[in-house]
Amino acid sequence: MRATVMYSAGDVQIENVPDPQIIEPTDAVIRVSRACVCGSDLWPYQKMERSETGRVMGHEAIGVVEDVGAEVRRIKRGDFVIMPFAFSDGTCVFCHDGLQTSCIHGGFFGTTEVAGAQAEAVRIPLADGTLFALGTHADDILLASLLTLSDVMGTGHHAAIMAKVTPGKSAAVVGDGAVGLCGVIAAKRLGAEQIIILGRHADRIALAKDFGATDVVSERGDAAIERVHELTGGFGVHSVLECVGLEQAIDTAIGIARPGGAVGRVGVPQEQTIPGSEPAFYNNVTVGGGPAPVRAYIEDLLPDVLEGKIEPGRVFDRTVDLDGVPDGYRAMNDRKAIKVMVNP
Amino acid sequence: MRATVMYSAGDVQIENVPDPQIIEPTDAVIRVSRACVCGSDLWPYQKMERSETGRVMGHEAIGVVEDVGAEVRRIKRGDFVIMPFAFSDGTCVFCHDGLQTSCIHGGFFGTTEVAGAQAEAVRIPLADGTLFALGTHADDILLASLLTLSDVMGTGHHAAIMAKVTPGKSAAVVGDGAVGLCGVIAAKRLGAEQIIILGRHADRIALAKDFGATDVVSERGDAAIERVHELTGGFGVHSVLECVGLEQAIDTAIGIARPGGAVGRVGVPQEQTIPGSEPAFYNNVTVGGGPAPVRAYIEDLLPDVLEGKIEPGRVFDRTVDLDGVPDGYRAMNDRKAIKVMVNP
Repeated sequence: MRATVMYSAGDVQIENVPDPQIIEPTDAVIRVSRACVCGSDLWPYQKMERSETGRVMGHEAIGVVEDVGAEVRRIKRGDFVIMPFAFSDGTCVFCHDGLQTSCIHGGFFGTTEVAGAQAEAVRIPLADGTLFALGTHADDILLASLLTLSDVMGTGHHAAIMAKVTPGKSAAVVGDGAVGLCGVIAAKRLGAEQIIILGRHADRIALAKDFGATDVVSERGDAAIERVHELTGGFGVHSVLECVGLEQAIDTAIGIARPGGAVGRVGVPQEQTIPGSEPAFYNNVTVGGGPAPVRAYIEDLLPDVLEGKIEPGRVFDRTVDLDGVPDGYRAMNDRKAIKVMVNP
Repeated sequence: MRATVMYSAGDVQIENVPDPQIIEPTDAVIRVSRACVCGSDLWPYQKMERSETGRVMGHEAIGVVEDVGAEVRRIKRGDFVIMPFAFSDGTCVFCHDGLQTSCIHGGFFGTTEVAGAQAEAVRIPLADGTLFALGTHADDILLASLLTLSDVMGTGHHAAIMAKVTPGKSAAVVGDGAVGLCGVIAAKRLGAEQIIILGRHADRIALAKDFGATDVVSERGDAAIERVHELTGGFGVHSVLECVGLEQAIDTAIGIARPGGAVGRVGVPQEQTIPGSEPAFYNNVTVGGGPAPVRAYIEDLLPDVLEGKIEPGRVFDRTVDLDGVPDGYRAMNDRKAIKVMVNP
């Protein structure tokens, strides 16, 4: 089959690779209906050191089950499924707690160990725990929104949960990428009254407003902190969704949180330390978050997607076939696309 | 009156200073029954740069109200009161939320702006919001425990709350100072089943065990992290009470937290960054805490103190008069005393 292989920063190739097969009896193989490029794929796109074997990329997909191992019970051939970006057994103590991204037997797609989904097909370890089977197939408009449940919508929701978004209170979203935009949807959905988006790309800001953002702050650093305070009676916001991962973004996030507030960070951290130890401490600001247990959130978010109450699929502003994937990476990296869908 | 004045690191003097007086109509003046030296007083004791005017130290006291300003309504002359380490108006939005340490009009005792309580008397700004009046005077045994409600017991409780201590779950306390020991009391009181104390001073460890610690880890750094994992089935603890404030302690705290766990930090941070950004992120460990709103916690903790269910006053292992205060600082700094009570 054909798949997307990254060999080093900027070097993304579409290649023929062996078809995925059942290895463990708990595996499934799915044919990919839609995959996509993630903002977090841009970190290796910018930094990856050369690898001889490369890495089959992609950790977001919806697809149709083609084969299942002998011990797969719940998932059947022909099921239309959402593939969360992490695989998980669904039975361990952490899965039981709804933290599937810490599953004892789990792991992540699109790594050097487990091939990714920017491909025609993908092997799914621990299929019964990992996959969410939808009752029926979906039309094209819904596909895009369903695809976001494999990562960005669940991740934005996680940021909102960890930031303790509360009805009638204020929230701010740091970062206007696809996750930040889904964070706006999540904050609105959880009842935030004021939603401030921190970003500076006109197309993304327009979408954020459509999704429910009430205020826009395009400044950065101290100027952004000052502006958010102006917009919130001098206090800062109750909830901050940090959707970037750079120290400066976390620093801003802590700086705009109101005393007693919370920062939910879902941007993959690019540094070893969290800045702002003193302001976080003296303001009793809580910093939480991490890889979102999107598997746990699908059941909660799916009805709103199916009913059209939320439309996270609107973050996709470009669709490519597999041959178009390298261009898709380039477009996202150059901020010429918000998020690129792959129809293999 | 006589008071404790710190001029620079290690230079603590007992001096005659002007008697405190009502300045604002919302002030009170209390005669100090008992004050004490705090672990956080040791940071300036180790680091303070020379000041010509010095700083009247002390932020923990119980006492009797001697005078009140014209606008003080709730507090009366003769009331026996607990003085929390922060003063607060009791009416602002943050006081309303129970976060009196972020009171819009509030501040802290024992600073260069507001004189402290290691003295014969102390001026209390915003007396109605700040002071907690006890119905009756207390006997000597209770005095010590009541005094801890002005800081260390409330602070240990805050660490436990921010660390989300839950009945039947595991907790660890980093630091065996008075706050850490009160953290053990708080974790036990909130129902933690396993309570691991990280510390290495025999007298403190013995007291921690009396207070409910089930395990002791005397290693540090990576060895401590490994040991806590051994004691918790390889997972780490649900709740970590960080009661030191040094980066290494926070690093250890994050390292011993189980995926999805929480760190409640109450040690005054001595550095600008929080280490362990990546392990905190990948394990979805929440880091919260800050100056404890002890004023909010008195009502909750007081009945247990009055009924003798908890005995936080046992952290005091030395009592001095004002002349003995410089020796008290030295003893605490040399780890020869856990916490020193001052009977002026």
